[in-house]
Amino acid sequence: MRILLINPNTTAAVTEQAAAHARRLIPAEIVPVTGRFGARYIASRAAAAIAGHAALDALAAHVAGCDAVYLACFGDPGLLALKEVSPVPVVGMAEGALHLACTRGRRIGIVTGGVLWKPMLTEFVAMLGLSERLAGIRTVAPTGGEIARDPDAALGRLAAACHDCAEIDGADVVVLGGAALAGLAERVQPQVKVPVICSVEAGARAVVAAAGLAGARPMRPPTESVGLSDELARMLRAEG
Amino acid sequence: MRILLINPNTTAAVTEQAAAHARRLIPAEIVPVTGRFGARYIASRAAAAIAGHAALDALAAHVAGCDAVYLACFGDPGLLALKEVSPVPVVGMAEGALHLACTRGRRIGIVTGGVLWKPMLTEFVAMLGLSERLAGIRTVAPTGGEIARDPDAALGRLAAACHDCAEIDGADVVVLGGAALAGLAERVQPQVKVPVICSVEAGARAVVAAAGLAGARPMRPPTESVGLSDELARMLRAEG
Amino acid sequence: MRILLINPNTTAAVTEQAAAHARRLIPAEIVPVTGRFGARYIASRAAAAIAGHAALDALAAHVAGCDAVYLACFGDPGLLALKEVSPVPVVGMAEGALHLACTRGRRIGIVTGGVLWKPMLTEFVAMLGLSERLAGIRTVAPTGGEIARDPDAALGRLAAACHDCAEIDGADVVVLGGAALAGLAERVQPQVKVPVICSVEAGARAVVAAAGLAGARPMRPPTESVGLSDELARMLRAEG
Amino acid sequence: MRILLINPNTTAAVTEQAAAHARRLIPAEIVPVTGRFGARYIASRAAAAIAGHAALDALAAHVAGCDAVYLACFGDPGLLALKEVSPVPVVGMAEGALHLACTRGRRIGIVTGGVLWKPMLTEFVAMLGLSERLAGIRTVAPTGGEIARDPDAALGRLAAACHDCAEIDGADVVVLGGAALAGLAERVQPQVKVPVICSVEAGARAVVAAAGLAGARPMRPPTESVGLSDELARMLRAEG
Amino acid sequence: MRILLINPNTTAAVTEQAAAHARRLIPAEIVPVTGRFGARYIASRAAAAIAGHAALDALAAHVAGCDAVYLACFGDPGLLALKEVSPVPVVGMAEGALHLACTRGRRIGIVTGGVLWKPMLTEFVAMLGLSERLAGIRTVAPTGGEIARDPDAALGRLAAACHDCAEIDGADVVVLGGAALAGLAERVQPQVKVPVICSVEAGARAVVAAAGLAGARPMRPPTESVGLSDELARMLRAEG
Amino acid sequence: MRILLINPNTTAAVTEQAAAHARRLIPAEIVPVTGRFGARYIASRAAAAIAGHAALDALAAHVAGCDAVYLACFGDPGLLALKEVSPVPVVGMAEGALHLACTRGRRIGIVTGGVLWKPMLTEFVAMLGLSERLAGIRTVAPTGGEIARDPDAALGRLAAACHDCAEIDGADVVVLGGAALAGLAERVQPQVKVPVICSVEAGARAVVAAAGLAGARPMRPPTESVGLSDELARMLRAEG
Repeated sequence: MRILLINPNTTAAVTEQAAAHARRLIPAEIVPVTGRFGARYIASRAAAAIAGHAALDALAAHVAGCDAVYLACFGDPGLLALKEVSPVPVVGMAEGALHLACTRGRRIGIVTGGVLWKPMLTEFVAMLGLSERLAGIRTVAPTGGEIARDPDAALGRLAAACHDCAEIDGADVVVLGGAALAGLAERVQPQVKVPVICSVEAGARAVVAAAGLAGARPMRPPTESVGLSDELARMLRAEG
Repeated sequence: MRILLINPNTTAAVTEQAAAHARRLIPAEIVPVTGRFGARYIASRAAAAIAGHAALDALAAHVAGCDAVYLACFGDPGLLALKEVSPVPVVGMAEGALHLACTRGRRIGIVTGGVLWKPMLTEFVAMLGLSERLAGIRTVAPTGGEIARDPDAALGRLAAACHDCAEIDGADVVVLGGAALAGLAERVQPQVKVPVICSVEAGARAVVAAAGLAGARPMRPPTESVGLSDELARMLRAEG
Repeated sequence: MRILLINPNTTAAVTEQAAAHARRLIPAEIVPVTGRFGARYIASRAAAAIAGHAALDALAAHVAGCDAVYLACFGDPGLLALKEVSPVPVVGMAEGALHLACTRGRRIGIVTGGVLWKPMLTEFVAMLGLSERLAGIRTVAPTGGEIARDPDAALGRLAAACHDCAEIDGADVVVLGGAALAGLAERVQPQVKVPVICSVEAGARAVVAAAGLAGARPMRPPTESVGLSDELARMLRAEG
Repeated sequence: MRILLINPNTTAAVTEQAAAHARRLIPAEIVPVTGRFGARYIASRAAAAIAGHAALDALAAHVAGCDAVYLACFGDPGLLALKEVSPVPVVGMAEGALHLACTRGRRIGIVTGGVLWKPMLTEFVAMLGLSERLAGIRTVAPTGGEIARDPDAALGRLAAACHDCAEIDGADVVVLGGAALAGLAERVQPQVKVPVICSVEAGARAVVAAAGLAGARPMRPPTESVGLSDELARMLRAEG
Repeated sequence: MRILLINPNTTAAVTEQAAAHARRLIPAEIVPVTGRFGARYIASRAAAAIAGHAALDALAAHVAGCDAVYLACFGDPGLLALKEVSPVPVVGMAEGALHLACTRGRRIGIVTGGVLWKPMLTEFVAMLGLSERLAGIRTVAPTGGEIARDPDAALGRLAAACHDCAEIDGADVVVLGGAALAGLAERVQPQVKVPVICSVEAGARAVVAAAGLAGARPMRPPTESVGLSDELARMLRAEG
Repeated sequence: MRILLINPNTTAAVTEQAAAHARRLIPAEIVPVTGRFGARYIASRAAAAIAGHAALDALAAHVAGCDAVYLACFGDPGLLALKEVSPVPVVGMAEGALHLACTRGRRIGIVTGGVLWKPMLTEFVAMLGLSERLAGIRTVAPTGGEIARDPDAALGRLAAACHDCAEIDGADVVVLGGAALAGLAERVQPQVKVPVICSVEAGARAVVAAAGLAGARPMRPPTESVGLSDELARMLRAEG
């Protein structure tokens, strides 16, 4: 199985980190790709809106020959648009991790870096239809980008946030979200009584599970455009 | 009052049509701007995702000197991202029209062109928190772009859809949505027993009402980026 | 534009205060009217139930010649009944202010005077279908009536409640509700980081925006009654 | 046990009919009282709003010496206001019948007379918090008042509506609502496969069950008023 | 009226306690029966799942000659299955008490013994469709079984939990839940400002109210089984 | 990986069928076990309640040495109880299939055999918190047991129900649910435009994905019991 891992921000080091973590855990070939334009790190609504475009652009340029797409940014910018145009199944990191977490606990907690993510993830969970399963979302001040540069500095805050998710919010399971946080869940786990799930790993496992399912796709209309990359313009112009 | 009217698709004729309609109805100066890249007409999730970026780009380039922003595409691509970065109030066409419609009837119907808009608008209404007020959404096959080119051909279908919204779905008021449908509400009204609201007009009235309200703004962090237009990169780099 | 401003309590000074504030802010003629019977100040469910009748009575007596009705009591007693019988559009103060506030922030806070208003407003927001947008409702002990008599004494408590709505409840915008609190929002604003909206102003702006919309009205049956004012009995007896 | 049965419309014949039906079924003394003002029959929002005041007025005048209050109009105008001021427990006809019906079936259907009741009852059920239990509401054209005058003429339509509630809407149990429909449930039952519950009976049984429960009451503030009946003014002026 | 009171745990002393309390309060013959297998006290999901089977078993063995069934365990294991197969009405203790409590207050609090009951009761309330009426659920550490053995030791904690339900969670009425807590509500009441309702009493009152209602029953198919008690196998084999 | 596949009904042929299908699709050792008591086929609430006990009993007897548990009955009787006591992860067939289906479509349809399953599955989906994602549930008259005996006879009805789920209910993806329907999805697919997912396969894939996740478990108290199998009694008596 060949999986296109799209990091829709523009920092290749984060792409490599997520791809390396996924390779260690799942039996599939990982093809990593980084956004061609947009924010270095996605930590605001504006950055996420641009990333939706960048993720579509990356998909159009690199999906050929892949069996599934892993949208590897926790918050899944452009998720539904990618599902619309992709010839193969697409699963987002937050989407996959949250659905899988639902099988491990009744009430799901989410911890991530960057304070502006809280309202964005609240809406994303609502869009998934999983609001009733949500115990709470806690963010720490350093963004994913800052955590990627110095994970040890953030570890204490992340552990404290996971702990509070369980003890105060009543989460039965906590998802530690973010491509840049790959591998930190196991380091945080000893300080938290409920399972702490790594979003990079859980998302990747969900991609593998979903990719195998049979399935036709509904049709979409061809769309004319201007000012886009050749690959994206061509993908939109083709019939679905 | 000076209002920046952003049409996030890339067809200037639709921008002009919406601006002209708004100018006739509201006592404000309208500054129209069209998206620099993206779909000619927005009728899919992919086109809408790209339009969110294009709307941000247009805002960054043209907001200086304006008192408010009217995001004039029914479906409001990028709405929350624009609110995040804009120095002046932003109101979306669907957002403003739907909130205003809520004061005219208990159950709101929506009619627009392009069948892929139905699930997108269903989610948009949920994001607004107005799902309980929704009687139903009905689409006609011609997209906004096609209706703009030949409104007379679509009028019968639009009237039938509005009628069914009232008679079958139980709507007390129907919003006829779409920049390209500016001015069609009054032509459809005679065939519908409940009020039919023009989204271009109602959205513009909501912009005027909202623009006047006093208000501070919360802060957002500066964001580094690559590959964006100079204006957008500069706006993201500035502190909120 | 001529707007009938109905204060459904029986204290003319509050009517005058709200009318004066509205006159300063919106370009319309304001026709103020005070309830003929009921509580001096509305601060309980019983008082609000009676006020619904009083508001209908005032509408029947004074709506002739007006273009729109502003039900100027935050909590909007009798709102849907007035909409049912009125020949012109009716907007309530809480209804209009809350819908407009939704365009300024994702999560709305409400602050008002009188502790019994909290459950009543919770139900009112639910009736509007806006519960998902509600961050929280905070009341201060003095009722609207007491605040009207001595606003300076209540200012500190109101500012603290608005501050807590933002900092503790997570409101992005706060509506300071109550006819008797007209004009206090700007005095409270300096102590609150998110926008504080005056309900008298926002409600009035919503009336202006809604009044302009075209619209037919559904029919209602003639109703025979006993023991009501001549005007109200006559209005009910007429076909809708 | 002495139960005050308040009919908040102004037709004494309906009061007598409901009281007579309740007397046959429950072991309690029934004290019937009719509204002093308002619509002959309640079949609109305006009539219901006035009835809330009339019900408070009747309570104030007649509650002395009673152990519980039965607000005997299906739709329960003024219900929460009566609960606020009453010295003894108050149960509404729709409130009591619907909660009891929930123990007989998973999905509740409602059938009543008067087409304007449908949206009003939809909101009432939402206010009770029982929307998820609702299979559907069906109304027949004749209002309660018309059915009271000629029940045989309406029987076929009521049976058909109950049948459709079960077969089309999926109701497991149907509440036949309305003081004027007392006793018709058993006549309709043979044509309906699921249980049909008489709202007058079920509401009365709920009053008896609720009346026996022990209970303190929260406090409410004294309220000054003008233009009300002496009894109601006195009740509002007293501390709760 | 003859009521089968099923205690689905396997401790006869709790059965007797609940039956004795019910006998003092309601005018009906109580036939008590204890589960033949399962947990001594139900304080976990596993124990509750087994109790659903045990309650069905008890129903099959003892329902003959009874007019109604009272499933007398707060949490109501097997409730919907019993309703499906029983020839007479079945009401659960939590079901009946909560619906009746809804007529006494807007927001319902629940207090019971055993910390694992909180998520189970949260789901039970959701299954009833009453989540919107729920102010909060508070548990004390001793389980119902431990409280039954030494009620005085638990009284302080129960009173504190009821008090917090009212003061912190905003409950207007509190249900003290549990067969083993029969009679403790009145001892706790003096320390709580809002009504405290005994679930054993309220459930029993709801059984009496519901039992009297007329009603047919939908059909269910005959079911072959292996390894069950003769009575239960026979009941499943019979047509519904 | 060694997976315990529990069929909680008492028909070994269905167990074998599901196990064989799972073995073909997933890279794991499957240990099948059939319920020791209960209905031959589960097609009612009573049968499902008993099956919850039987599933616990099977788990206690056979979980030793397994890495995960697959509760292989669509409707997942006893799911949360099994999760509570199991030393290894437990995923139910409906739980796993529905969460995975959510990554393939926005609105999920469910088709299964046995008309009584519709309300049961409606409640199960609500318990999962996925109600908003549900397009509709359609059942065919033959139960899973009947379909297992003669799948060809049911194929037309199942295809028609899947088709209607997509065309009428608006499902983007349909889950064909039931252990006894293993392998029928691919036979039905040609007649349905949207993906049809086999619940046996999708559930098994979800078990594999979930089994790999790291995780601690919260504690549960030891429980004394009577009349249960030795294995189950011992498991309950042990601390969690």
